[in-house]
Amino acid sequence: MQVATCSAPTNIAVIKYWGKDNVALNTPISSSLSVTLQQDQLRTTTSVVGGSALQTTRLWLNGQEQPINHRVAVVLHEMKQLAQRVHGKNEEKLNTHLHIVSTNSFPTAAGLASSAAGYACLVATLAEFYGISETDEEFPGHLSAIARQGSGSACRSLSGGFVAWQKGERPDGHDSIAVQVADERHWPELCAVVCVADDAQKDTSSCIGMQLTKATSPLLTYRAKTVVPERMKRMEMAILARDFEAFGTLTMQESNQFHAVCLDTLPPIFYLNDTSRQIIALVHRYNEQAGRVQAAYTFDAGPNAVLFTEGPHVQEVVSLVHHYFPPSSEMLIRSSTLIDRTLSTALLAKIEALSKCNKSLQVSHVLDSVKMIYVTRVGGGTQVLSTGEALVDISTGEPLP
Amino acid sequence: MQVATCSAPTNIAVIKYWGKDNVALNTPISSSLSVTLQQDQLRTTTSVVGGSALQTTRLWLNGQEQPINHRVAVVLHEMKQLAQRVHGKNEEKLNTHLHIVSTNSFPTAAGLASSAAGYACLVATLAEFYGISETDEEFPGHLSAIARQGSGSACRSLSGGFVAWQKGERPDGHDSIAVQVADERHWPELCAVVCVADDAQKDTSSCIGMQLTKATSPLLTYRAKTVVPERMKRMEMAILARDFEAFGTLTMQESNQFHAVCLDTLPPIFYLNDTSRQIIALVHRYNEQAGRVQAAYTFDAGPNAVLFTEGPHVQEVVSLVHHYFPPSSEMLIRSSTLIDRTLSTALLAKIEALSKCNKSLQVSHVLDSVKMIYVTRVGGGTQVLSTGEALVDISTGEPLP
Repeated sequence: MQVATCSAPTNIAVIKYWGKDNVALNTPISSSLSVTLQQDQLRTTTSVVGGSALQTTRLWLNGQEQPINHRVAVVLHEMKQLAQRVHGKNEEKLNTHLHIVSTNSFPTAAGLASSAAGYACLVATLAEFYGISETDEEFPGHLSAIARQGSGSACRSLSGGFVAWQKGERPDGHDSIAVQVADERHWPELCAVVCVADDAQKDTSSCIGMQLTKATSPLLTYRAKTVVPERMKRMEMAILARDFEAFGTLTMQESNQFHAVCLDTLPPIFYLNDTSRQIIALVHRYNEQAGRVQAAYTFDAGPNAVLFTEGPHVQEVVSLVHHYFPPSSEMLIRSSTLIDRTLSTALLAKIEALSKCNKSLQVSHVLDSVKMIYVTRVGGGTQVLSTGEALVDISTGEPLP
Repeated sequence: MQVATCSAPTNIAVIKYWGKDNVALNTPISSSLSVTLQQDQLRTTTSVVGGSALQTTRLWLNGQEQPINHRVAVVLHEMKQLAQRVHGKNEEKLNTHLHIVSTNSFPTAAGLASSAAGYACLVATLAEFYGISETDEEFPGHLSAIARQGSGSACRSLSGGFVAWQKGERPDGHDSIAVQVADERHWPELCAVVCVADDAQKDTSSCIGMQLTKATSPLLTYRAKTVVPERMKRMEMAILARDFEAFGTLTMQESNQFHAVCLDTLPPIFYLNDTSRQIIALVHRYNEQAGRVQAAYTFDAGPNAVLFTEGPHVQEVVSLVHHYFPPSSEMLIRSSTLIDRTLSTALLAKIEALSKCNKSLQVSHVLDSVKMIYVTRVGGGTQVLSTGEALVDISTGEPLP
């Protein structure tokens, strides 16, 4: 019985992915760019165990056995093909069944891009299991291309730091892969405040949503062809220069434009609700009082808000969210550093004054709409863990309790 | 003392106007198209009185004296210039001060396009006062161009039926005028159900909003240059063919795209709220159960919804709105025909079933969010009223109580 265990991070897109070019290959109509988050708090861990004693290939997610879906099957097939090319067909490991056990460190239902971390982790763990490293290959980026076939955004979770998923030009999709723009040590001051929102309303799945937008929105095509290529360049420049104002402005514009094309869909797709609007208002008022962009919001295909800011302002941002979106009981704040929630009365007075003179986007208190906050930073890519950290009993291949 | 009194209708855009080309001339970046509503319920009435006894030009709106704002001053100036060209400079009426008295038949605060009806009515009444008819002029559409300078959408309220405001090409704006596509007798079955929503939140004024969108939204330019010209043609064809499915589908797409470009603005502009989203969901579910587009929504720069439908379905549409958006006390329904609010249990069951299997855009009950409904049809343009209907005391020039 042989085992491999890896962990993978989640990532937050700042240039948004929306719209598939080739559905079978899972290639996008435009490039995208994301920030990989630290794995301290938000992390998927996966073990793959194989051996002649196993009767069939099985999968457990967060302790529950699941059927092998189409996308997992594609990733398993592609990884085996790749292993054959590297090691030859007779490699013993290629012919055994597998048990795959995966867990998330965060509530799965919270909509925190668990599929990106999940498929990245599956690919990394299978690569470790089969003894494949990126440098073995004739096509660099092959692991990235396989992760992409599991879940588009998963290819961006293989690497740390700032990662561009290049749209690619080849019909076989081999060049539709993720490439690191800067590593996780590049911008140590950049922080992400992940606000987990109350998800009473079920959303349109992003897979169905992006097909519908592509079929009905005239604005999506223009965005993909004209707006995104230029924004990719500007975002890379902003990141390389650690220019928070440029990074933050473009991040907010991208979030807004993504939701704009969702609204240009028929029937329209809404991911932003009245609470999201209040968070957006708060960030704009916070930046106005500072006279510069000190915080930026981004929303994906769900109700959570991710607020980017730099180290010195994290305490203010967290305190403001806590003030305007108060929990009925204690708010869970997960952070590797202690966050002082004392809110400066001067700051609050400035925001209230701005809110009064600007009648649109008024900030108001919304009880219990943010249930949890993660304060985190830019982090590294997938990691190989030790046998001691495996999620399976190596003697039996069964998941550990 | 001489008096003229006219009434003017409000209009609902089905191809939306958003974005000024020349701010001084009030010309748009794209054409738009609207439906003129009957004046039975939604109407502005204006009297203009002039005579040597008046000391200064004054204005009353809904019983309150108001200062003459810049746009009213522009309309007064342009109408005087036009009257001089028609009658010569020595015409006595051109040299007297005026009292202008205007009232709306509906709550002004309800956001029912009162400026469109208001400026159309002012232009029509001044034309009547100065004895100008469209046929006198060398430039046909001159009244339209003057109304446009008061409020863009006002030019569309001069005519009845279906009215296109052509963007125009001339630098002086003389060809940026409204033209009737079909008159008010063309499509007698078409009905508009105006849902007046509770307006707790103050909105961004459309004048400020469209400037901000023009300055910051990359999607607006594409919409104006590429999407709207093609949609104008399709909308005219749908209207001429009385094709409700084509008309309704395009109306909803236009409403959605207008709000999409508002969202693509920085800071984003939100006119749709959680109640609007529920109304949108209800209309889509209603059409799904029918297997065709039987109703269509459109939202302007405010919280009200206008639902278009054809005669046979008005009763269902009104009953559904009343069911899902129940008032805490009696809902005001203004209609020239009696509306039976009995809701078919079969219809309700179908909508509930569709809502259950479609997790996005679920329909739910929202208490007290619709406070009033007007059921109305396509109507005629401005009308000249008799001296007996004047809003002023003709002997003194003072507003009647």
